[in-house]
Amino acid sequence: MSQIYEKVALIGLGLIASSMARAIRAKGLAGEIVGHARSAETRATALEIGLVDAVYERAAEAVQGADLVVLCVPVGVMGKITEEIAPHLAPGATVTDVGSVKRAVIDAVGPHMPEAVHFIPGHPLAGTEQSGPRAGFATLFVNRWWLFTPLEGTDPAALTRVKSLVEAMGANTDEMAPDHHDLVLAVVSHTPHLIAYTMVGVADHLRRVTHEEVIKYSATGFRDFTRIAASDPVMWRDVFLTNKEATLDILGRFTEELFMLQRAIRMGDGEMLHDYFTRTRAIRRGIIEAGQDTDAPDFGRAVPKKDE
Amino acid sequence: MSQIYEKVALIGLGLIASSMARAIRAKGLAGEIVGHARSAETRATALEIGLVDAVYERAAEAVQGADLVVLCVPVGVMGKITEEIAPHLAPGATVTDVGSVKRAVIDAVGPHMPEAVHFIPGHPLAGTEQSGPRAGFATLFVNRWWLFTPLEGTDPAALTRVKSLVEAMGANTDEMAPDHHDLVLAVVSHTPHLIAYTMVGVADHLRRVTHEEVIKYSATGFRDFTRIAASDPVMWRDVFLTNKEATLDILGRFTEELFMLQRAIRMGDGEMLHDYFTRTRAIRRGIIEAGQDTDAPDFGRAVPKKDE
Repeated sequence: MSQIYEKVALIGLGLIASSMARAIRAKGLAGEIVGHARSAETRATALEIGLVDAVYERAAEAVQGADLVVLCVPVGVMGKITEEIAPHLAPGATVTDVGSVKRAVIDAVGPHMPEAVHFIPGHPLAGTEQSGPRAGFATLFVNRWWLFTPLEGTDPAALTRVKSLVEAMGANTDEMAPDHHDLVLAVVSHTPHLIAYTMVGVADHLRRVTHEEVIKYSATGFRDFTRIAASDPVMWRDVFLTNKEATLDILGRFTEELFMLQRAIRMGDGEMLHDYFTRTRAIRRGIIEAGQDTDAPDFGRAVPKKDE
Repeated sequence: MSQIYEKVALIGLGLIASSMARAIRAKGLAGEIVGHARSAETRATALEIGLVDAVYERAAEAVQGADLVVLCVPVGVMGKITEEIAPHLAPGATVTDVGSVKRAVIDAVGPHMPEAVHFIPGHPLAGTEQSGPRAGFATLFVNRWWLFTPLEGTDPAALTRVKSLVEAMGANTDEMAPDHHDLVLAVVSHTPHLIAYTMVGVADHLRRVTHEEVIKYSATGFRDFTRIAASDPVMWRDVFLTNKEATLDILGRFTEELFMLQRAIRMGDGEMLHDYFTRTRAIRRGIIEAGQDTDAPDFGRAVPKKDE
């Protein structure tokens, strides 16, 4: 594939940025890839594994001359880092971000953005429970959705160009209004994460069931929750703090619904439980038919080895 | 490996029974395997795929002459089926079950059990979201825990024999008091399932987010919940109705904890959220170190294919 940008600057070098670096390099989509990370350890790792061509201690240095700047830091620090880099952005450059929340990013980043720069907020719906520069892999975005929430008056050519980059990395693209994005994500990602964190926390506290038992007998169900609850704490703290309204809204719906099922259990209403559990099966089928998950039992994960 | 039982009768031919049949056959652990299923379609499938040597419409016929009878029906019908088979059980036979709840099974099954028969309640902590006779596979129990909750006065030889069968299928065995079993399972399996069902139900109801969006953008988190919420509705209805007290107890703890986190989000208490999310990470590490899950990112599941 041919080069889409001259110089891409990745601000923050975690799972998403390191996957982008690998995918961009694998497909030859940029002439040069540079990065910035706050931690000296991350910077050293990035150089050691050849993730980027150059790495900078200051974000302002990394963005110089870049025609694409990608903000890959936690949502809570996007505003501050934009303030730092703004005076150093090249005129005509595109700035995008990969934050899981869009309204808060637009409010924090927008005011600092120079007029001569195209700011196009984005969000790849892709990730794993692992983090850091070593966690990335080039195929992370294949067949995943990369949503853009362009602001009014966005330059169509700049939007097409950044879309062509992520599509070349294997992603599907779509556009959405920022507030609707935040509501959809509260349903399909943010609230499920909070619930998984909560359930794992409950198990950890329960004194009548030992910590050892929780780990040893972690059956299907809980085991899957622990994967989600192993996600990056800083990223998720910021998600909940910045998508507060939508998360609290969906949490309210969730609690109502949970109380209804809890009451059915208490009253012994088997018919209601059976009907409910039958309906939820259909959604799984839809997701598999849409190519968004595998139909292999238990995700087709490897059977844990046993020493014989 | 050598034969452990002469004739094994599997009562019910779903995921667990069909996995047992395959594992027993693969390792030559029984002289003969017979089965019973209520549905004619299941019986026809079992014969077609060669799951068992013979299949019976009536459970009472299947158990005749069997030295091991395994009850693999939903917890809610264990009592009734035991009443049917009791007069036909061979003296000296062992009867075990694979129900996810133990106190209710003991209360329902125990009173019907003839004195000359060894009743040893059991529960394999293994399964997938799929059900029926075609869903089974021989390695389902490898490195999984198979818990037994033996009653007072259980014959040690009969217990050792049934343990040796499930160990030969690859399982690890352990003993536990029935009520403690039900509490542990409420934490590591039953409550997580109810929560997953609830979250998927909420997404399904939400009119401001379309059904199509929920499926299309099902991100990590929600996607995993849908797998759990695709589990067998009859089995899970019975689990909640029969492990009512422990499930309601853990649900109460869960809701308390969720309200605390919800309040932290509302108040903007980032420090509390960050600390909480950091602690839950450690549990995941414990489960992986205990060999109960893979450390591959996203369970190592296959990247969905994309038409190019």
